[in-house]
Amino acid sequence: MKTLSENASFGGVQGVYSHSSDACQCEMTFAVYLPPQAKHGKVPVLWFLSGLTCTHENAMTKAGAQQWAAEEGIALIFPDTSPRGEGVANDPAYDLGQGAGFYVNATEAPWAPHFRMWDYIARELPELVFAEFPLDRDAQGITGHSMGGHGALTLALTHPEIYRSVSAISPIANPTASDWGRKQLTAYLGTDESKWAAHDASLLLAEKGYPGTIMIDQGAKDQFLDLLKPEALATAALLKRQPLRLRLIETYDHSYFYVASVMQDHVKFHATNLRA
Amino acid sequence: MKTLSENASFGGVQGVYSHSSDACQCEMTFAVYLPPQAKHGKVPVLWFLSGLTCTHENAMTKAGAQQWAAEEGIALIFPDTSPRGEGVANDPAYDLGQGAGFYVNATEAPWAPHFRMWDYIARELPELVFAEFPLDRDAQGITGHSMGGHGALTLALTHPEIYRSVSAISPIANPTASDWGRKQLTAYLGTDESKWAAHDASLLLAEKGYPGTIMIDQGAKDQFLDLLKPEALATAALLKRQPLRLRLIETYDHSYFYVASVMQDHVKFHATNLRA
Repeated sequence: MKTLSENASFGGVQGVYSHSSDACQCEMTFAVYLPPQAKHGKVPVLWFLSGLTCTHENAMTKAGAQQWAAEEGIALIFPDTSPRGEGVANDPAYDLGQGAGFYVNATEAPWAPHFRMWDYIARELPELVFAEFPLDRDAQGITGHSMGGHGALTLALTHPEIYRSVSAISPIANPTASDWGRKQLTAYLGTDESKWAAHDASLLLAEKGYPGTIMIDQGAKDQFLDLLKPEALATAALLKRQPLRLRLIETYDHSYFYVASVMQDHVKFHATNLRA
Repeated sequence: MKTLSENASFGGVQGVYSHSSDACQCEMTFAVYLPPQAKHGKVPVLWFLSGLTCTHENAMTKAGAQQWAAEEGIALIFPDTSPRGEGVANDPAYDLGQGAGFYVNATEAPWAPHFRMWDYIARELPELVFAEFPLDRDAQGITGHSMGGHGALTLALTHPEIYRSVSAISPIANPTASDWGRKQLTAYLGTDESKWAAHDASLLLAEKGYPGTIMIDQGAKDQFLDLLKPEALATAALLKRQPLRLRLIETYDHSYFYVASVMQDHVKFHATNLRA
């Protein structure tokens, strides 16, 4: 692991690191925020997965999460959203390839050799960060924005034993029925749609439920609402009798100005769940 | 108007009154809580509509609302749920007739002469209480439980110019598709289902929306969830891009123990909206 930068932030440390990833077969960059409480022992962890076109940097610099993480004594991890580099496949579109890993293990050419973000987030990066930082492996929550909300929900619904708390901000909630999803799932997983269901939060929720309350926030003025489909997730949750906190919040759009506006609520939600 | 009782409560007064109702053609009982702030001028109003089998008394004695109303300086009005008395039609079932007015103006025999709860709540009772008590007519919110949540939502969606704030606790959310609804709408309004749509919150919301955030709470362990259909309301709200706060709360059932558990949130929600 290389340290790319470390900055003092709200009494703790915001670091950026890189490492050679086996899962993605390339150098991967990620950010970790350690709150002041980490000086005295292991702290709970909140994973924040980012959306299309983002790197580890967007949420780290624009979500204003560190102040709330410091208040609650919880660490933040901001992974990248895809493999990157010269030998890594890409596409001219903003919503496929680098910056658009969709948190799946690709099985199709040309993506399969590097695009294994599911394994990277759920298996490889945890091994590294739990070895390197004072983090409590038994107190992990996960959240994310847009494509990252999709990642957070699908990972938590599949691995509730890892993620004891889950929320999402404007998630891609039903990708098998959306142009944000069908294109990417076809590219990464192939045309057999039966393989897509494991990566659709609404379908997973209807099938499995989750052993805790799921919190979802969505801006009512989000320019991408037709692609996000929160109604599918709400219906699945309510029919499953899944404990839920859902807000469709007036005036907010899809930007990080909105993400920052609800960040305190999400950090507090996870901190409370992980202390319970 | 006759005063049946007045009791000091959290620095204010909880009163129970009756009057001869033109709309319902019988003596009607209702309760008003005036917070301490009403001694010094007009205060905002929160209407609380009750559910099947209830009178004005259930929420007044079991919801614990007065403490929060006193804190926020907001009055509470608890109407009855139907006309009552010897000359008033009834049915042996708990969910039809007296105690089950469903907040409609009945057009069918034997209900039409007395069962005009829509007009009673929206027109007649306001005239009385605004004449008799120091209440701010321009600051009215409405909420309710179960059948009362249905009443609150349908009244507010139809008359947003009257009700500037609306929430509901475990509302009957889609009565045209539920056994809590189809039976009563048939009895009171007849078999022409086109006349029912004006009394279905999910259909009204899909058609009209509401110029403010709607707050809905629902217990995840509610024994009547199949009859309440919150998923229909959630879908209608999200597809309409209607600002919404929706909670499906783990462990809670349909009782007043649950209503009391969320009452503070509802009183604060309305008080905040009505001050804005």
